Amino acid sequence: MYRRVFETAELGRKLSKDEYKEQVPLLRTELLTLQRQLEKADFPVIILLGGVDGSGRGDVLNLLNEWMDARGINTVAFDAPTEEERHRPPYWRYWMALPPKGRIALMTSAWYTTPVVDRAYGRTDDSDLDASLQRIGAFEKTLVDEGALLIKLWLHISKERQRKRLKKLEKNPRTRWRVGDRDWKHAKLYDEFRRISERTLRATSTGEAPWFVIESANARYRDVTVAQQIAERLKERLQKKEKSTAPRPLDPIPDPDTILDTLDLGAKLEKTDYNARLDDLQASLNGLSQWARDKKVGVTLVFEGWDASGKGGAIRRIIQALDARDYRAIPVAAPTEEERAQHYLWRFWRHLPRLGRFTLYDRSWYGRVLVERVEGLARPDAWMRAYKEINDFEEQLVAHGIVLVKYWLHISREEQMKRFEERERTPWKQHKITEEDYRNREKANLYEAAANDMIERTSTEYAPWTLVPAEDKRFARVMVLETICERLRAAID
Amino acid sequence: MYRRVFETAELGRKLSKDEYKEQVPLLRTELLTLQRQLEKADFPVIILLGGVDGSGRGDVLNLLNEWMDARGINTVAFDAPTEEERHRPPYWRYWMALPPKGRIALMTSAWYTTPVVDRAYGRTDDSDLDASLQRIGAFEKTLVDEGALLIKLWLHISKERQRKRLKKLEKNPRTRWRVGDRDWKHAKLYDEFRRISERTLRATSTGEAPWFVIESANARYRDVTVAQQIAERLKERLQKKEKSTAPRPLDPIPDPDTILDTLDLGAKLEKTDYNARLDDLQASLNGLSQWARDKKVGVTLVFEGWDASGKGGAIRRIIQALDARDYRAIPVAAPTEEERAQHYLWRFWRHLPRLGRFTLYDRSWYGRVLVERVEGLARPDAWMRAYKEINDFEEQLVAHGIVLVKYWLHISREEQMKRFEERERTPWKQHKITEEDYRNREKANLYEAAANDMIERTSTEYAPWTLVPAEDKRFARVMVLETICERLRAAID
Repeated sequence: MYRRVFETAELGRKLSKDEYKEQVPLLRTELLTLQRQLEKADFPVIILLGGVDGSGRGDVLNLLNEWMDARGINTVAFDAPTEEERHRPPYWRYWMALPPKGRIALMTSAWYTTPVVDRAYGRTDDSDLDASLQRIGAFEKTLVDEGALLIKLWLHISKERQRKRLKKLEKNPRTRWRVGDRDWKHAKLYDEFRRISERTLRATSTGEAPWFVIESANARYRDVTVAQQIAERLKERLQKKEKSTAPRPLDPIPDPDTILDTLDLGAKLEKTDYNARLDDLQASLNGLSQWARDKKVGVTLVFEGWDASGKGGAIRRIIQALDARDYRAIPVAAPTEEERAQHYLWRFWRHLPRLGRFTLYDRSWYGRVLVERVEGLARPDAWMRAYKEINDFEEQLVAHGIVLVKYWLHISREEQMKRFEERERTPWKQHKITEEDYRNREKANLYEAAANDMIERTSTEYAPWTLVPAEDKRFARVMVLETICERLRAAID
Repeated sequence: MYRRVFETAELGRKLSKDEYKEQVPLLRTELLTLQRQLEKADFPVIILLGGVDGSGRGDVLNLLNEWMDARGINTVAFDAPTEEERHRPPYWRYWMALPPKGRIALMTSAWYTTPVVDRAYGRTDDSDLDASLQRIGAFEKTLVDEGALLIKLWLHISKERQRKRLKKLEKNPRTRWRVGDRDWKHAKLYDEFRRISERTLRATSTGEAPWFVIESANARYRDVTVAQQIAERLKERLQKKEKSTAPRPLDPIPDPDTILDTLDLGAKLEKTDYNARLDDLQASLNGLSQWARDKKVGVTLVFEGWDASGKGGAIRRIIQALDARDYRAIPVAAPTEEERAQHYLWRFWRHLPRLGRFTLYDRSWYGRVLVERVEGLARPDAWMRAYKEINDFEEQLVAHGIVLVKYWLHISREEQMKRFEERERTPWKQHKITEEDYRNREKANLYEAAANDMIERTSTEYAPWTLVPAEDKRFARVMVLETICERLRAAID
């Protein structure tokens, strides 16, 4: 139910042979043109390909050398340190692999390998990992500060996909040699690698050098997306004079699949079932809220989702179960004048409740990476940086003893239109619908891409997103209540 | 002999009453004018006053409120958290104290207090401290990224000074109340506080939000310097359009005292003493170098100092004691074309020797914060950032098993001129003297300020600076040899 970082890269995105054949020649021409321009530019480019075994990092490496002019590329694969390398500090070999201005270095995981693998094999603990990630942060910062363009792409495949691929390689006598004990050992540690990779990506996705996760189950989709991301980033950088804008994710291509499309919008609940479930859940929640008050556990609920997706209704079903002294519902609108004179997170810090209370946010700090991103109210460097700032903020809440539950309520565009029309017809609901709501609809694709990126970059182990199919209001309300009861019970344990 | 961070703030800098009376009215007028301009600006200002007890943070707080328009200043002193505050995450109260755009918040140590005090009392260990410092880094980064001007001033007094002040306060019946048990307890922990503060300042001095250490033994000097630093920083920021330039240290005022002036340039060694000492030391060094080779300990020696201060001569006395296979002397000149196409640290990484060897740098990576700073070859944001980059670099060397010794060879300007003239007269030394050497002399004050800042910001516990009085060449050479032998012996233990 809860969504985690890599799920946005397990959507089954693919590209047909025809689409691939159509796009590749254009992409290759663009890459070569950009490479020509880069030769005269005064910055180096470092492309890092991270990802699990079997995601095809090696294939992509070879392909990029084929698609681009290999003479302008240093391709570097790091193996176990040589004797020469062991005589120097660990980062020496990475420094030596850095490209000069005007050139590209193409590397697989590089400085990420040792920290991640050591942690997965239990040779280090989480705090060692964090120290390594801090070292990585300082290293990448000095490269970027001195002008380097750092493109970090993470190729992701699912556990199932990884196993299938290994088995297939083993079956074929001509590829059997590619599968070693180490591969199977790594495969067994898939879940552990995934957890560590999440932590790693989160800690090292900065505004200036963010990771982009690329779904890699389908090789054609993977190759084209990698090449497009590189082309976009190069173009962005070559065009701009000052380096104040940060990289931004691509709009999903070629098919706008997002994690939201994976939800089963057919999920429904009949009225009688609903009434019974609602009564039960509200009774449970009331009991849990008394426990929370006694134990001084704070509960913060964040509601995001489409206009008319039923956020208000879900919130009302929760507060019906609470004592009025125990909660505060905060509708988040445009910031006041006083708030605009402060850091964008300030107004959320400001309203943090005492422990032992419920706080329900109808829209939230995520406005930064949703409406402000889509409407151009925040610059790309500001909203790109915000993912990390928000993760830091939420980490502090959770560390302080707050249970943080984040909901995205999802409905189809057809259902949304139906609800808009219904609001227009209902006198006491007319105030809820404005011209702006219709305008937002036109940007639905952009909002959806923004929501997808948000879920990818802010689904943390301490504050995962819960995606709620809200086409049926009853189903959605019950799911929202169930989730909060579950999370509170988990907090009791 | 080795220099540590705070020694540059124990030089006895002071201001006479007359100087003070002359400067204060001008400063106050300037501060008020800047404050008027700030009201219309779109950024907030946060002034942090850190420092040990007794350095006068409270007095400075009051004074600034008097000198500036107190209506534009939120003065915040943080005590033990209130009940309201304990109900929120620790940073809540800092967020609530942030000023809106156009205003100033004036705080004492704020978010630095708990990490430093907890560590000093042994309630946490170094890795807890590092985690707290990382949290501070993320917090300050988001403030600065969103446009805040963060001015961090550290008021320093020596241990002796602190004790004297406490005793004086205790003696006077009217001020006795100001001295509590806690003050004496802290005073006993002075050395521990100092070590922790060093670590704290190093970790949190970033290019965008560096600490400036202010010598605070003399109240007049302290007050004027604090006010000047604030005025400078405000002016800098109000004048610039884009926020790409970083804050820079003030040229020492009003009297250009630097740490270099504390050296006893009268130190001398007679020729016979010298010859005997030299023989002994070279024999010791030779033995130690064999140990280093066997144990695979790397030795890196950095020589910085004035032109004609005798760096080359000192280096020759060292390599005379070494097997030619065991060392490499690297004269650092302007970077080659290949090197200019890379990160400025790249050429030093490139020449890192294998372990078990000596590497002697005649000038070094410190060029970034010396000649490049003074000659305007690096922008202020680049050289300001470099202190941290260099500390990171050196930390990696030392962690890898390298003994790193850094020398600054110091001579008076008169002695330098004498040596220049001697070079001109000696046919085989003429090539060592150029027009440029004379031009550099004209900027001696700027170089001296740069050297002072460098020593302040890069004297770490793992790689302290050794300042060598080099007016007498014999004395200098012996001291250089003694130091390396000492450091190697310490490494053996």
